[in-house]
Amino acid sequence: MTKEELLSVTALNSWKLTIGRFDQNLAALTDEQLQKQVAPDKNRLFYLVGHLTAMHDRMFPLLGLGERLHPELDEPYITNPDRALADPVSASDLRKAWTEVNSKLTTAFERFTPEDWVEKHTAVSDEEFAKDPTRNRFAVVMNRTNHTSFHSGQAVLAK
Amino acid sequence: MTKEELLSVTALNSWKLTIGRFDQNLAALTDEQLQKQVAPDKNRLFYLVGHLTAMHDRMFPLLGLGERLHPELDEPYITNPDRALADPVSASDLRKAWTEVNSKLTTAFERFTPEDWVEKHTAVSDEEFAKDPTRNRFAVVMNRTNHTSFHSGQAVLAK
Repeated sequence: MTKEELLSVTALNSWKLTIGRFDQNLAALTDEQLQKQVAPDKNRLFYLVGHLTAMHDRMFPLLGLGERLHPELDEPYITNPDRALADPVSASDLRKAWTEVNSKLTTAFERFTPEDWVEKHTAVSDEEFAKDPTRNRFAVVMNRTNHTSFHSGQAVLAK
Repeated sequence: MTKEELLSVTALNSWKLTIGRFDQNLAALTDEQLQKQVAPDKNRLFYLVGHLTAMHDRMFPLLGLGERLHPELDEPYITNPDRALADPVSASDLRKAWTEVNSKLTTAFERFTPEDWVEKHTAVSDEEFAKDPTRNRFAVVMNRTNHTSFHSGQAVLAK
């Protein structure tokens, strides 16, 4: 493996590890437990799963990987705070959406070459990217990995 | 920049961004507020800062960067749970240790070449590393970045 391949694979491992840990925690929770809040007056676990699924789903267009699978999750789980809207999906459908989105992303990431990783994402202009080439797909996926960890830290408090 | 340099710099940005956000949140808290728990019966903010400082301090020997600065923080903030031992440092000294450890690490990371990043860390044997070359310094720093995000998600709940 070249150094650039090794750096790419190491970062992809970090994404997989973080998603895998969240999967494990989610699998250990019943649908009723998903209604628990992570702390008094804070987000429900259900909301966090919806929020992460919607944010990850946004990566399809952001990374040039095609159409979104679940744009209907933005309104209840990104635009609005928890409990402002009724959940539009069942726990079972939300679990399926979470798995579907992440599996499809991971499959796409596994095919990325180092050249693919350092390409610009679609929310940055050519001019901005010329000035700052770190605004690439690699940065987006590391940012989303950290974002997953951020909410994982909250989710474990509900145990 | 070569692709391997770009991948290295992008990952280092992720570390800096995550530490920078924690710094900002920490700066906004009074010493009294550091005694707050992130949720009922959960860790105090003080403990989380001690824990992250100790874990980051361990990276000096783990990444071959020299001696630790604050080994005295392991016992109260890694080995033991919160409030098992009295805090051995003042809030002001803990803030200094946090800043000192991360500044020194970041300076070292900024000098790392891609060759340095893909070197093995010191907790893996030559045999294991030959089998799995992703057990490198890059993986350690991404892991610690995610770990910081994990506890940052908890820390913001105390607001």
